[in-house]
Amino acid sequence: MSLRPEYTGVASATIPGENIESNDSDGEQMFKAEIKSETLKGLVNVISTLIDEVKFTIDQDGMVLKAVDPAHVAMIELKVGAKAFESYSASNTEIGLDLDKVKTVLKLAGPGDTISMEQDEGNGRLVFRIGKITRSMNLVDTSSMNDPKVPQLSLSTKVRVVVDQLQKGIRAAESISDHIALKANSKYFELSCEGDTDDANLKLEEGDYEELIASSEVCSLFPLDYFSNLIKAIPSGTMITVELDNDYPVKLVFGLSNDEVKVEYFLAPRIESD
Amino acid sequence: MSLRPEYTGVASATIPGENIESNDSDGEQMFKAEIKSETLKGLVNVISTLIDEVKFTIDQDGMVLKAVDPAHVAMIELKVGAKAFESYSASNTEIGLDLDKVKTVLKLAGPGDTISMEQDEGNGRLVFRIGKITRSMNLVDTSSMNDPKVPQLSLSTKVRVVVDQLQKGIRAAESISDHIALKANSKYFELSCEGDTDDANLKLEEGDYEELIASSEVCSLFPLDYFSNLIKAIPSGTMITVELDNDYPVKLVFGLSNDEVKVEYFLAPRIESD
Amino acid sequence: MSLRPEYTGVASATIPGENIESNDSDGEQMFKAEIKSETLKGLVNVISTLIDEVKFTIDQDGMVLKAVDPAHVAMIELKVGAKAFESYSASNTEIGLDLDKVKTVLKLAGPGDTISMEQDEGNGRLVFRIGKITRSMNLVDTSSMNDPKVPQLSLSTKVRVVVDQLQKGIRAAESISDHIALKANSKYFELSCEGDTDDANLKLEEGDYEELIASSEVCSLFPLDYFSNLIKAIPSGTMITVELDNDYPVKLVFGLSNDEVKVEYFLAPRIESD
Repeated sequence: MSLRPEYTGVASATIPGENIESNDSDGEQMFKAEIKSETLKGLVNVISTLIDEVKFTIDQDGMVLKAVDPAHVAMIELKVGAKAFESYSASNTEIGLDLDKVKTVLKLAGPGDTISMEQDEGNGRLVFRIGKITRSMNLVDTSSMNDPKVPQLSLSTKVRVVVDQLQKGIRAAESISDHIALKANSKYFELSCEGDTDDANLKLEEGDYEELIASSEVCSLFPLDYFSNLIKAIPSGTMITVELDNDYPVKLVFGLSNDEVKVEYFLAPRIESD
Repeated sequence: MSLRPEYTGVASATIPGENIESNDSDGEQMFKAEIKSETLKGLVNVISTLIDEVKFTIDQDGMVLKAVDPAHVAMIELKVGAKAFESYSASNTEIGLDLDKVKTVLKLAGPGDTISMEQDEGNGRLVFRIGKITRSMNLVDTSSMNDPKVPQLSLSTKVRVVVDQLQKGIRAAESISDHIALKANSKYFELSCEGDTDDANLKLEEGDYEELIASSEVCSLFPLDYFSNLIKAIPSGTMITVELDNDYPVKLVFGLSNDEVKVEYFLAPRIESD
Repeated sequence: MSLRPEYTGVASATIPGENIESNDSDGEQMFKAEIKSETLKGLVNVISTLIDEVKFTIDQDGMVLKAVDPAHVAMIELKVGAKAFESYSASNTEIGLDLDKVKTVLKLAGPGDTISMEQDEGNGRLVFRIGKITRSMNLVDTSSMNDPKVPQLSLSTKVRVVVDQLQKGIRAAESISDHIALKANSKYFELSCEGDTDDANLKLEEGDYEELIASSEVCSLFPLDYFSNLIKAIPSGTMITVELDNDYPVKLVFGLSNDEVKVEYFLAPRIESD
């Protein structure tokens, strides 16, 4: 059995985005933006289910994060377009952040508050401002953070469902087993968990999901903690696409903040050895 | 001093209910029912103040539970009539349940949700269904769980009072002593607690209780934790009857879910040795 | 560096108040009063940030408490006028209280409840009554509790501000450093905190405070935990006066319960040694 069929390969660090040609010619790096506290909180909550210290690769169109967790079991790619911000102004740069510290900043903001962020190039800091409060923190060194290569998977089965349904299934599965099975065929999509003395099961049939595309029956087993932490971090009401195949990673695709933030998440299957 | 004047005697296991003659002749055991989550939660909360693994004795009229706690200090008899359920269908059977697991099922239900339960005779399981969630668990072996003999006590004093009054008295008594005194005479009913440096006291006089029948003054001392855990588990607004005598167990009688569930609870007194 | 430039001197125990001449001639000590639970809770919350066992010096006009914390870093003087009570009747006396026990009494009271207190001279107790609950506790021996001498300071800078502003600044400072700097000049009042990798700062300018009197720039450093615990214990909306000078204690003056309770709080500065 192997928990790591994927993600160990790391792409050479490249600058993402379609606007490489528009790099500032003076070489000065810059990032200054304002964002609703809810938007920042939403994306921090999702990323921090996987990893605490992260690198955002920034250009004039927005920020991109690609990261694997320390155990190389899951991968996230998150794209925050410039429109997700209240105001946005950036040249090509990178910022490394400790998300635990960003969470303490988020606690200072009330609902509806706008948080301003500005890279302080001189001393390698990011400065947050919320109302009359200024909070600055050292940037994390990103030199050893290479972007993982996002897998190109062609998975046979796809279901679109409101995340609340999956959240119910996960709560039923807790304390029964360390693993959760995702199963789909043309009739239903099922989350199930089998323990020594207990079983739990959520079966979604037509009417419970928005779309189900399945040619044959597929089933894979995943670590419950990763799946559960992610699904719980997604705001209620979010539509999520689950792509699945036999003994392949599951691919979860969803948007945050009216789809201005786009997330792809891959989770490696547990494969039973013979 | 003895904390165990009662309950050590155990009656030979008998089938309760008035309908023994109507046993299904084919010998097949069966239990299938639907119940409001609030009703199931209410009775689980009360029972689990005493014991975690329990046996329900079931017939076509409902379920009965008789249990003592591991230290033989308290006893509960709980009768759940068929009308306490949304639907009910059963032959004579027994089911053994781990209430901690039933609590995890209850957490999956929202207010107003109906929980269906069905005995899976083939593999000794109980299957719960809440909406699209199926949760099944192994039944607990009941072969060593004998029904305790419910004491027939004739106690001289009786007070009927809303449980909220007792809950207030208990909160005042906490952290003062390990024991609580229940005292009554024709004028008042009193809960009191004496510590080395602190006292607490709740005195209920006419108007504070619904009924008080007392021929002479009686007083007994009880372990505060048992009394407190039970009283706190009873829903606010419940009318409770407290029957009392000098150095006798206290008998508490109350109903749950509009009296469809009937509970008798006996708690042994602490008797000071000379 | 010294954290204790103040408060080590202790005044000889004297009877405070302007009515010493009206002492009861019969020598009998007495204290009986009723108080809103919110009022008692408010003052207990403030005092217990400093010290648990306290002495109230009582006369017919009210109660006074003067106390330093065990480390002699902070001092509080709290005056509760007779009008802060629903009813009040007292001769010259002292009562020593364990505030942790008083907090358990406060938990028995709902909002709007009146708590009656009566000194039980015979056996050295204070008796609390809330509705039908009686809760009595031994008084704490006050013979070794001498009143500290309240410092007479003439501080050059004064700012009046709603406590909520300071509460925001404190939340931003937490986890960054053990100390907080208070700084003021004629333009602004600032709370700031510098750590090795992080800074936090709250800058209040005209419009953010009610009044600012400053002749020159002053700045002092204070232990964050003391300052934070006090500021958090003050109810939202309370107007607080902060008096400040270079390397002098800060003096905080505020009222509770519509100013019927008056509080002065002194906190020693951290002075950097050369």
